[in-house]
Amino acid sequence: MTLSATRSGGRAGRPRVEGRRSNLAPSEEILESAARLFVNEGFAATSTRDIAEAVGIRQASLYYHFKGKDGILDELLQMSVRPSLDKVEKIEAECPAEVPEAALYLLALVDVRTLARAPHNIAKLYRMPDVTNSEVYQFQPMLQELTRAYGRLGAQIASPPVAATISAKQLGRILIEQVETVIRSRSDGDNVGHAEAHAIAAGCLRVCGVPQDRIDRAEAAASDLMADLVGERSTP
Amino acid sequence: MTLSATRSGGRAGRPRVEGRRSNLAPSEEILESAARLFVNEGFAATSTRDIAEAVGIRQASLYYHFKGKDGILDELLQMSVRPSLDKVEKIEAECPAEVPEAALYLLALVDVRTLARAPHNIAKLYRMPDVTNSEVYQFQPMLQELTRAYGRLGAQIASPPVAATISAKQLGRILIEQVETVIRSRSDGDNVGHAEAHAIAAGCLRVCGVPQDRIDRAEAAASDLMADLVGERSTP
Repeated sequence: MTLSATRSGGRAGRPRVEGRRSNLAPSEEILESAARLFVNEGFAATSTRDIAEAVGIRQASLYYHFKGKDGILDELLQMSVRPSLDKVEKIEAECPAEVPEAALYLLALVDVRTLARAPHNIAKLYRMPDVTNSEVYQFQPMLQELTRAYGRLGAQIASPPVAATISAKQLGRILIEQVETVIRSRSDGDNVGHAEAHAIAAGCLRVCGVPQDRIDRAEAAASDLMADLVGERSTP
Repeated sequence: MTLSATRSGGRAGRPRVEGRRSNLAPSEEILESAARLFVNEGFAATSTRDIAEAVGIRQASLYYHFKGKDGILDELLQMSVRPSLDKVEKIEAECPAEVPEAALYLLALVDVRTLARAPHNIAKLYRMPDVTNSEVYQFQPMLQELTRAYGRLGAQIASPPVAATISAKQLGRILIEQVETVIRSRSDGDNVGHAEAHAIAAGCLRVCGVPQDRIDRAEAAASDLMADLVGERSTP
């Protein structure tokens, strides 16, 4: 349903949802349409009216669910961080003491999965000036916290030459950057499958100087834990 | 000089440059001011009038040098790729056969330097939808070519477990992504120094499964070649 159809058929008053075509909740539909528009048309070029029109609701109804465009983008960006961040504590608690490398491997697998599922590869917009220069965006401190978790897990298993040359802060940046290869793959139109997820996770351990035999052990341990964490076996 | 000052003092006619305060060429000054505005205010929020005003020239003069905002952004983004891409052939030709790992190490050092010097960390805007969805931007094929060079150099030195699990294409993405950690560091307000440049370059070799003793040899060989390539010793 187009905006004009909504308009001609509607009355002023309480925001109502009309003419929607999917089974998603209205807020989910708003997020889905907004992500598509932000990524395809650009954030600045997309108005809340465009989003409402794409969903088939009144513009006023949109403000019922979100604090405008910034609120929608922030929620979308949080969706590309929160599922990973929420699992950090569990990953650190459940990682077997005899295979400490499994924790970073598992975080990388979980985070590849999060980024592979983020609607319309929305994480492309992480570095957008509107986002990085604004304090409105709550997702920023979440991303910083996730980066610190990478740095912490990396520093715990870093080989002496790595530990001697890279701070935990810098290691965290290098590791999360490596996992964000997923954003690049999706931008290139490539699916991120099981093999790429494991290649990225193993690459994270290699950056820390972990030798191959311990990478193999970490992969086995992490694959088992992944099943418990996300209810499936390590596919993104 | 502000726009109003330019206006009140100027006459219509041939584009002229007035009131500029620096010793840069006008086109360089336009690039510098545009980069600052794009990164601080956002690309969409910046007009050619804003840029002209920041430089202290007439808006018409700007079009004398560039095809509008897109042309300026494309040139800026090219500046964050071209200096590295231009050196790939020389790097491959001059790398000593007995230390093949030095080529990737050197490319990473050169590219860290390029990104560390890009005006106002402009490479933050790589993934902006206005850029990635447009065919106007010539910098995109340059970035693809640089990514392929990373993949080629990485595949040449990949250990058997890496070669068995990662394609050259994917390895290229992982490696360039790792070097783009520089963008993240600069966004965090941190300078990228000699130590971080070498940490990133060594990390690239580790991702390929290169053992520490060969990383040390590559570092030594690359540091020597870097002096010839950029006229200084490996500082970004």
